[in-house]
Amino acid sequence: MKPARDLTTLEVLEIAIKAEIDAAAMYRKMIKMVKNKDLKNRLAFLENEEKAHRALFEREYKAKFPDVDLEVPKKSSVPSVEEALHKDLSLKELFEVAMEAELLSEKFYSELAQVSSDLQATATYKYLARVEHGHYDMLENELNYLKQFPEYYQSEYFNFDDNAYHVGP
Amino acid sequence: MKPARDLTTLEVLEIAIKAEIDAAAMYRKMIKMVKNKDLKNRLAFLENEEKAHRALFEREYKAKFPDVDLEVPKKSSVPSVEEALHKDLSLKELFEVAMEAELLSEKFYSELAQVSSDLQATATYKYLARVEHGHYDMLENELNYLKQFPEYYQSEYFNFDDNAYHVGP
Repeated sequence: MKPARDLTTLEVLEIAIKAEIDAAAMYRKMIKMVKNKDLKNRLAFLENEEKAHRALFEREYKAKFPDVDLEVPKKSSVPSVEEALHKDLSLKELFEVAMEAELLSEKFYSELAQVSSDLQATATYKYLARVEHGHYDMLENELNYLKQFPEYYQSEYFNFDDNAYHVGP
Repeated sequence: MKPARDLTTLEVLEIAIKAEIDAAAMYRKMIKMVKNKDLKNRLAFLENEEKAHRALFEREYKAKFPDVDLEVPKKSSVPSVEEALHKDLSLKELFEVAMEAELLSEKFYSELAQVSSDLQATATYKYLARVEHGHYDMLENELNYLKQFPEYYQSEYFNFDDNAYHVGP
């Protein structure tokens, strides 16, 4: 991908919209693999966050380019995301790809904050970068717990005492 | 409040349940003051997270003390939370109290992780401490954005371009 500073505003918005569509799709895929209600809710929240970001960028696109039809790139610019959406991966692998994607989004929005000359755009990209970083932290914490208690995502409600299958550390 | 290590398991669970009830009530109060749909969703997510924690602790209470009636403390152990729930505060002030409460929860769960001898309880308290820290980060990012764009929470959808009322930095 070209560095953010070499992209036109139109390209930026198209790339951002595609990345948010893919991220939402990835969380949708993960939700289907999980039985635990709390984890499902967390993933649904992440899906909704990415949908809200997509909507924000689509409103921005319409405002800035009212006469241009939006052309969302067909392929994700991140190969591991493209693969995750079309292949059979384990839940853990999907967590890892989602975390990578969140970090890339954070980086993309941080770069855009740096090259934006408009104060509000700068603040909004900084805000979005921190939101994506928060998603990364949330996923990391969930994955860490999941690795210690693999039964966590398979039981509707997971309790302090459900340690029949307890493994490591 | 006594240090976590001096509390009985029963006291720990009662305090945690009360804190999660209060946190959920605070987010409910904040949701009513906000028009922005995305921010409303974020606060509703936080409310649901605290409800899920409460349910987790209530299940644990029933498992550990099946014959003891749960007695939730009437007053919050955090004066600013008690005040926030019963006084008229601005949305910004509520954000600040909520952030303080999240940090205190993080501290409480971290201490419990340190004094727990059971591996799963230790891991679960560490996990919960990080969840509450994530809530703190989310609130801080929202409050920061809100301070720059006070109109953010008052408009149903906030856009990059809605900078008619733009203030600072």
